[in-house]
Amino acid sequence: MERLQKQMDFIVEVDKVKQIIRQTYLSDASRKEDDAEHSWHLALMAVLLSEYSNEEVDLKKVVPMVLIHDLVEIDAGDTYAYDEAGAQTKVERETKAADRIFGMLPEDQGRWFRDLWDEFEAYESADAKFAHVLDNCQPLLLNDASNGRSWAEHGVRKSQIYKRNEHTSEGSREIWKYMQKLIDKHVELGHVIDE
Amino acid sequence: MERLQKQMDFIVEVDKVKQIIRQTYLSDASRKEDDAEHSWHLALMAVLLSEYSNEEVDLKKVVPMVLIHDLVEIDAGDTYAYDEAGAQTKVERETKAADRIFGMLPEDQGRWFRDLWDEFEAYESADAKFAHVLDNCQPLLLNDASNGRSWAEHGVRKSQIYKRNEHTSEGSREIWKYMQKLIDKHVELGHVIDE
Repeated sequence: MERLQKQMDFIVEVDKVKQIIRQTYLSDASRKEDDAEHSWHLALMAVLLSEYSNEEVDLKKVVPMVLIHDLVEIDAGDTYAYDEAGAQTKVERETKAADRIFGMLPEDQGRWFRDLWDEFEAYESADAKFAHVLDNCQPLLLNDASNGRSWAEHGVRKSQIYKRNEHTSEGSREIWKYMQKLIDKHVELGHVIDE
Repeated sequence: MERLQKQMDFIVEVDKVKQIIRQTYLSDASRKEDDAEHSWHLALMAVLLSEYSNEEVDLKKVVPMVLIHDLVEIDAGDTYAYDEAGAQTKVERETKAADRIFGMLPEDQGRWFRDLWDEFEAYESADAKFAHVLDNCQPLLLNDASNGRSWAEHGVRKSQIYKRNEHTSEGSREIWKYMQKLIDKHVELGHVIDE
């Protein structure tokens, strides 16, 4: 029973990720979304869009990867994509969080999740690159649906979005092409600053 | 591009499931959770707990199944587990919703999701039985963590919980044993009515 108890304790602990609020608004702009909602959306996108990955991906890895990729934010908080000060301490905060949170699981499963998270952060494998495509595309879809509200509130510049997406085409050329059209549209509309 | 556009339209449409509020409180009882958060939790539980399924399950089916099992509630609304009046019209409302929502996808993927949802509802396959174990266990974990608040608010009786879980042990004897201990604990505490 000790193994099952550890798993159940972890499952209850990670409920806290539902309280980590992101900067992206829901499609109707009624409120910002949280990490659990975001991760659910990515997992669904993974199963629907894997056909657009440049390289073959393994959904048995990508899906758990996106389901757990933000759990470290339970301790480390959400660092907004364009927060440069926060980015400097992000790695240290998140590594410490990963030690504690994944450490709650039975050793084999804790190691598995930690490896998936490390692989996601390393951004090198085909699976990680595709997971990042989803992680970057999903807020873009919601920003588009909510009339660019989060971009406008943060005064986001086109160059910042392109910098954040500098490797997106390595994961999926087709999805990146779709994303570029959306970015251009919102530059045109004045929701994204074109310097 | 038409295929990708359909997929993206679906992905934005189902964002609405984040606004379908369930009766279960988050672990700290601060607010009720929504369907997207619940579905994220089930998917994570599926990958962690499949070892306890009585029969071998296929996570490439169970995970998408739990990710999409509540999408029909976008149109049909959430029917509380112990709402007997709502239960009478549930099937009709949800079937109509499934036609519309899964119908937005390219035909192959719409058919795939519809089949998964039908299989979940039919409650016959090993995959569906295990998905239902998760769907019944997750709110129980949150009810336990939040001191039985949702049960107490609804005056839920022990017999109702047992009725709802009459097939849970067919999916996982071990998880059902764990769940029974939690139920007994909250009967003892007076959060669940023992008639």
